[in-house]
Amino acid sequence: MSIPAIQSLSVEEQAKKAKIAARTLGILTTEEKNDALRTVADALETEFESIIAANLIDLKKGEERGFEQAFMDRLSLNKKRIFDFAEGLREVAELPDPIDDVMSSWTLENGLQVEEVRVPLGVIGMIYEARPNVTADAAGLALKSGNSIVLKGGSSAIHTNRAIVQIIHLALKNTKIPKDAVQFIDRLDREATQQLFTMKEHIDVLIPRGGASLINAVVENATVPVLETGVGNCHIYVDEEADAEKAINILINAKTDRPAVCNAAETLIVHQDWLNENKNLLAEALQKHGITVHGDESAQEALPKVIPANESDWANEYLSLDLAVKTVNSLDDAIDHIDQYGTKHSEAIITENRETARKFMQLVDAAALYHNASTRFTDGGALGFGAEIGISTQKLHARGPMGLPALTTRKYLMSGNGQVR
Amino acid sequence: MSIPAIQSLSVEEQAKKAKIAARTLGILTTEEKNDALRTVADALETEFESIIAANLIDLKKGEERGFEQAFMDRLSLNKKRIFDFAEGLREVAELPDPIDDVMSSWTLENGLQVEEVRVPLGVIGMIYEARPNVTADAAGLALKSGNSIVLKGGSSAIHTNRAIVQIIHLALKNTKIPKDAVQFIDRLDREATQQLFTMKEHIDVLIPRGGASLINAVVENATVPVLETGVGNCHIYVDEEADAEKAINILINAKTDRPAVCNAAETLIVHQDWLNENKNLLAEALQKHGITVHGDESAQEALPKVIPANESDWANEYLSLDLAVKTVNSLDDAIDHIDQYGTKHSEAIITENRETARKFMQLVDAAALYHNASTRFTDGGALGFGAEIGISTQKLHARGPMGLPALTTRKYLMSGNGQVR
Repeated sequence: MSIPAIQSLSVEEQAKKAKIAARTLGILTTEEKNDALRTVADALETEFESIIAANLIDLKKGEERGFEQAFMDRLSLNKKRIFDFAEGLREVAELPDPIDDVMSSWTLENGLQVEEVRVPLGVIGMIYEARPNVTADAAGLALKSGNSIVLKGGSSAIHTNRAIVQIIHLALKNTKIPKDAVQFIDRLDREATQQLFTMKEHIDVLIPRGGASLINAVVENATVPVLETGVGNCHIYVDEEADAEKAINILINAKTDRPAVCNAAETLIVHQDWLNENKNLLAEALQKHGITVHGDESAQEALPKVIPANESDWANEYLSLDLAVKTVNSLDDAIDHIDQYGTKHSEAIITENRETARKFMQLVDAAALYHNASTRFTDGGALGFGAEIGISTQKLHARGPMGLPALTTRKYLMSGNGQVR
Repeated sequence: MSIPAIQSLSVEEQAKKAKIAARTLGILTTEEKNDALRTVADALETEFESIIAANLIDLKKGEERGFEQAFMDRLSLNKKRIFDFAEGLREVAELPDPIDDVMSSWTLENGLQVEEVRVPLGVIGMIYEARPNVTADAAGLALKSGNSIVLKGGSSAIHTNRAIVQIIHLALKNTKIPKDAVQFIDRLDREATQQLFTMKEHIDVLIPRGGASLINAVVENATVPVLETGVGNCHIYVDEEADAEKAINILINAKTDRPAVCNAAETLIVHQDWLNENKNLLAEALQKHGITVHGDESAQEALPKVIPANESDWANEYLSLDLAVKTVNSLDDAIDHIDQYGTKHSEAIITENRETARKFMQLVDAAALYHNASTRFTDGGALGFGAEIGISTQKLHARGPMGLPALTTRKYLMSGNGQVR
């Protein structure tokens, strides 16, 4: 069994429809948008079985194609997961509406009144991989902030995504949000994705969510502005003045709590003096938690069973229970290493010396800097931003966890009575 | 006579030096930065004759190459212009420092302290055309906001730009700002510019300033994030309920005050009923101000000496005393026209009907929307932002006139005592 494709419009036609719908959506009231989100949430719960049925098709195909377990886990839905993302939409409905917020206003000497207001971006293009919950999450955040969304999910989740979007479309019919505000690119070909890259006239921003290769492909090929997200090659720097217990607790948490997420630690940078003093404690903790160490020469000397590290160990995310270990003789060397290999996501220093911590946080170029805490807190929920559409690792527009305000821009509105220059 | 090139480093070596210098610069105090700007301003005044001498070389070459007068005007410097941009640096020194501003701070339930602080972007790549004042203006804004800058000016101004940068470098020697924070790409080849496009590791943002073809080349080829500036295909929509005197005053001001700038009007969209009633008044004003009209059929019927308009008249900036005239029968048609041809810069409606004005300002997608005022106010100085590095026509990061805050990003600083998730 296979659910039929939703429509056969070209990608450009879909993007145009999204743009037209954005005009209507952009001026809805907060209550109209919230009602729509709650209606969609109810529908996803009522129709959860059709999502599960579609998901089984994707899972079966995934099994046939021999996808690895972690991938299958991300793809797999059950009743609880579906109810969770429905509940997520209700939580987004509760968040403050970022639109029509007058950010500032003033009057010029000539009497011209100036207002700076927050408005939707317009049309968001979302390019993502296996997690089907992104379909509902991203649509919810886009609609709440008054934006249309064009969804292009991974081909391995196409049946699941299609089922979710069909439910969203049906539910929106009973709301003020036009169903065209949610476009689903129901195609398996790469060309469809590439068309989104250059559709500047219809799409205001592309948000890629997935692995480094997806993100790089978007950044390198898109002329539509991109909000880069997610690759986190995060470091824990254990300074010579680090408290051993804090250092080890934080390292183990950052590495093992959820190794596959972007705010997990990938490299331990450790001061040689601290390592000499605490190598037994560290070795014990690493072993106890099943961590495989890839280290430089000093690490190989200090710790048991260390695989010699190469360039790729420093440069890439493991997203597993592997850890690279780099020894240094100074804060500056630690900063230089992060500067060379970091992805500007989350970086931590463990030290009892406040001055050293201050210098680290000032000089390291990243979205989130930690002193004596785990990198795992870089997350919209954990930091109190509400739901997030991704974690920006770039510097323009939005940095770190991106909540609703990241999906908005501004307009300056000038009201006069004939003013000229 | 030709002033020798400053150095012979590769573009990449220069960008690396800029990045290293940015670390030092990023943590200077406000006073250290302001002192440096004032020192540079003094030096530009003291050494103005060497800038004029260099400028004469560029002007002579420009004459030989037969550049048109408007271009030569932009290229040409004199004592007053140089003193003006020196004074501009002193004004930038007076502006509030955007750096180290704690934008918000809070404490999580687990005691983790969160601070959101404003920090410099890092290294700004500035690609511009003939105006040599951009060299000093852009350097001043970059340094004040704690950023290094890599300057790539137009080849026609290379001697002038080189002379200005040599003075800046000499002056910075006596300040806390490292001279490497200002890099000048002293090359005539296009390859140098193209190398800047993809230098993501060393350059944080590219800002093109110049004509549409320069800006498009940067947007289409750069993988470094771009702050798009300046192309303004601005419209004045004269509604059926417009006051004739206001409409004509505003149109004439927006078209003729400075036709070559980006916030000048390029197209009059006029309601058919208003045109029928006011065609004589309008024709008289257009003729009196030497405006050449390119119009659609209705405009050709209503006004004398109208050149039939084609697609290019709607789509491009004239930057001259030419005006396209499009007649419409409704607000929606006016909005559709702007939606199709506008560049999201500045758009105005002239009407006595507040509801119509509100709808126009809500539905038109542009940085600046005007009701009964000239588009000429879209300018950092006019709106009270202080000096601007350009006018953003994009939606991400910065929209409209970009002052110092547009050259910054944020960091989240988390301080704990061992918190883990």
